[in-house]
Amino acid sequence: MSRALRIGLAGLGTVGSQVAESVLSGVIPGVSLSAVCARDKTRDRGVDLSTVRWVDHPNDLAEAGDVDIIVELIGGTGDPAAALIDAALAAGKSVVTANKALLAARAMHLAVISEASGASLAYEAAVAGGIPVIKTLREALAGNKITRVCGILNGTCNYILSQMESTGLSFDAALRDAQALGFAEAEPELDISGMDAAQKLSLLAGLAFNIQPDTSLISVTGIEAITDQDISYAGEFNSVIRLIGLAAETPEGLVQCVSPMLVRRDHMLAQVKNELNAVMLEAQPVGQLFLQGPGAGGGATASAVLSDIADLAQGFGRPIFGMDALQMEAASVCALPPQAWYLRLALADEPGSMATVTQLLAQNGVSIEEVVQRSRNAGDTHLPVVFITHKVAPANLQAALDSLAQQDRISDQVLALPVFEA
Amino acid sequence: MSRALRIGLAGLGTVGSQVAESVLSGVIPGVSLSAVCARDKTRDRGVDLSTVRWVDHPNDLAEAGDVDIIVELIGGTGDPAAALIDAALAAGKSVVTANKALLAARAMHLAVISEASGASLAYEAAVAGGIPVIKTLREALAGNKITRVCGILNGTCNYILSQMESTGLSFDAALRDAQALGFAEAEPELDISGMDAAQKLSLLAGLAFNIQPDTSLISVTGIEAITDQDISYAGEFNSVIRLIGLAAETPEGLVQCVSPMLVRRDHMLAQVKNELNAVMLEAQPVGQLFLQGPGAGGGATASAVLSDIADLAQGFGRPIFGMDALQMEAASVCALPPQAWYLRLALADEPGSMATVTQLLAQNGVSIEEVVQRSRNAGDTHLPVVFITHKVAPANLQAALDSLAQQDRISDQVLALPVFEA
Repeated sequence: MSRALRIGLAGLGTVGSQVAESVLSGVIPGVSLSAVCARDKTRDRGVDLSTVRWVDHPNDLAEAGDVDIIVELIGGTGDPAAALIDAALAAGKSVVTANKALLAARAMHLAVISEASGASLAYEAAVAGGIPVIKTLREALAGNKITRVCGILNGTCNYILSQMESTGLSFDAALRDAQALGFAEAEPELDISGMDAAQKLSLLAGLAFNIQPDTSLISVTGIEAITDQDISYAGEFNSVIRLIGLAAETPEGLVQCVSPMLVRRDHMLAQVKNELNAVMLEAQPVGQLFLQGPGAGGGATASAVLSDIADLAQGFGRPIFGMDALQMEAASVCALPPQAWYLRLALADEPGSMATVTQLLAQNGVSIEEVVQRSRNAGDTHLPVVFITHKVAPANLQAALDSLAQQDRISDQVLALPVFEA
Repeated sequence: MSRALRIGLAGLGTVGSQVAESVLSGVIPGVSLSAVCARDKTRDRGVDLSTVRWVDHPNDLAEAGDVDIIVELIGGTGDPAAALIDAALAAGKSVVTANKALLAARAMHLAVISEASGASLAYEAAVAGGIPVIKTLREALAGNKITRVCGILNGTCNYILSQMESTGLSFDAALRDAQALGFAEAEPELDISGMDAAQKLSLLAGLAFNIQPDTSLISVTGIEAITDQDISYAGEFNSVIRLIGLAAETPEGLVQCVSPMLVRRDHMLAQVKNELNAVMLEAQPVGQLFLQGPGAGGGATASAVLSDIADLAQGFGRPIFGMDALQMEAASVCALPPQAWYLRLALADEPGSMATVTQLLAQNGVSIEEVVQRSRNAGDTHLPVVFITHKVAPANLQAALDSLAQQDRISDQVLALPVFEA
């Protein structure tokens, strides 16, 4: 390389500061930091930025003559992040970003302008933090046909679920713990609703299956309805509950969903604890790969950003989704194939309740593999009952759930969770 | 790309045939198969090679005008593989190989001639089969300082150990099973001696720590001495036995060793079953990554070969060890830092035996954390006794083992296995 690759860095939070420190330390040969931009110039970030030029507005980085590539770590789906990325790509400057929300919302737009200008858009840090899942899907599995991508893509949810499991905490208490420890945001909706995982899944599905990323096509269920009772019931079926993002080819088409699922204790995904992320990839001819690592945090995210920078420094930019964006197909909604479900009901403690429910399930073609019914707690008017079904087609399950919803012997909504298939 | 990258493929065994089939199917855009070479032209390999030119000698591929890169899948450390790779690199043709034994033996020689000619030598398939560990170390962790690489690098040993664990089979019986199922060679010495894992570890250590790969610096212990009793004792300490390859920075220097180790059941490496491989990488700032997948077999190895081919087709060749070969340092031998050990002894069943042994251990500064002594089987003259030590410096352990070796109250050799530190 005759000249260093000169970086313009927008956003100096935990990740940005770590990236700045690493680049300034010279850990990546042939890379220098020209200019930075952040809202607060005075905050002590633990890194000496005195040799670096500050600009007033992120877009100044896109226009700067001494900046070759942009590292966008501002976040958010709107401006200034969106305007900066657009301006940089239009100017032929490659962009490295960790911004999954923006990518998920604007992936095809960005792919098209990036290919038109020849600039790269690198986003290893946007999915599963320090786990090199983008590199693995796009490069390591280049000669494979990918059939299934699934994993634990949200560290906040995994922290809450595995804490409920190990300590018996309620959902609310586990969430408060996660917030106190910095594993959950003060406003955790994006995480616990499953939407953050869906954004990441949409990018993985785009890469793996050559489809246009579209979160609106993903069936998304969050973890808000999971109780400590559910965790305990799952244990009786030798399983744990994990928020799984899944994109898989099925005879009916490409399924994309995010949902809490029952995962058998001896499965690798059940071993993924606390804030860790993990991805399982199935492809031919390789078979099955499992990758685990830190999904968030300054160090993990910075590592992925630095990896993208190092590739660009060597001139190794890739198409965003590994192929011509205009050739990517639109996906469509596709229900899960017939499979087993966990159903949790609160049943009126009176004669015939169980008979009514099991009859309704049978009438709709839902056949039962296992049942657990516990005795009623003092003061409760309803009994908790849990079923594991045999494999059931989605239409049958929905019909059964609709019938159950009309039954006044059942209080509240029935919780239905897929049983994860290994 | 204006013109396809044209491949010359040497070796048409299981892996070679799978690679040929994938390339001919067009799964990697911009890649074609010009010529092949194999000992037997007539064998049915399940792939139609009628459009491909056959050459008589592997070296013809290096000289062929219609071959841009060589895929070497002949195997073996000597000719014709060595001559082919040398000739190709000297001619400026990049080489993709799965040949860990040859690479381990000739890594620096090949790195130097590859850099002189500007041709790449790609070897993702040489370590851990389908797991993209070379790509992860060299590219995904480009901005990291790696501190530890460890893992299960030999599927044969892992199959034998995990079968002993799940079925109670003896070592010999598990080996025979592995041979019958194709997970072990008819001549399994290279695998069960730990040498195959050491060859792979030397390459990983070279990449991770910028040192010249050198298997002679690796302390290597095979799995031949592991009995079903050891597996059972390990279980009592809530552990399993795994053949672990480990390269780690310590205050005394870079430790490199391959040995069966006790691994706690709840550790990810203990969950790696049968013929699978796994690698755990520790680095700053990323933290800890864990990668698991198939370590051998046609599909997994072909997947890694295809990944290298795809990178070369896009012009993305890398230095063998991610840096200038002439700047790589020679490593030296370094013992494990103070750590816990599993010691298994056969003790004469007579008064004072245990006292003698515990005294000898104490005299050498080896302090005991746990002991298990079982009753003697009918006919045995010796009692099996197992100790887990507290952390002990290697010199003290060796002195203790030397003292024990002189005791006629102990039959056979003492088996000493490191306890893996998570």
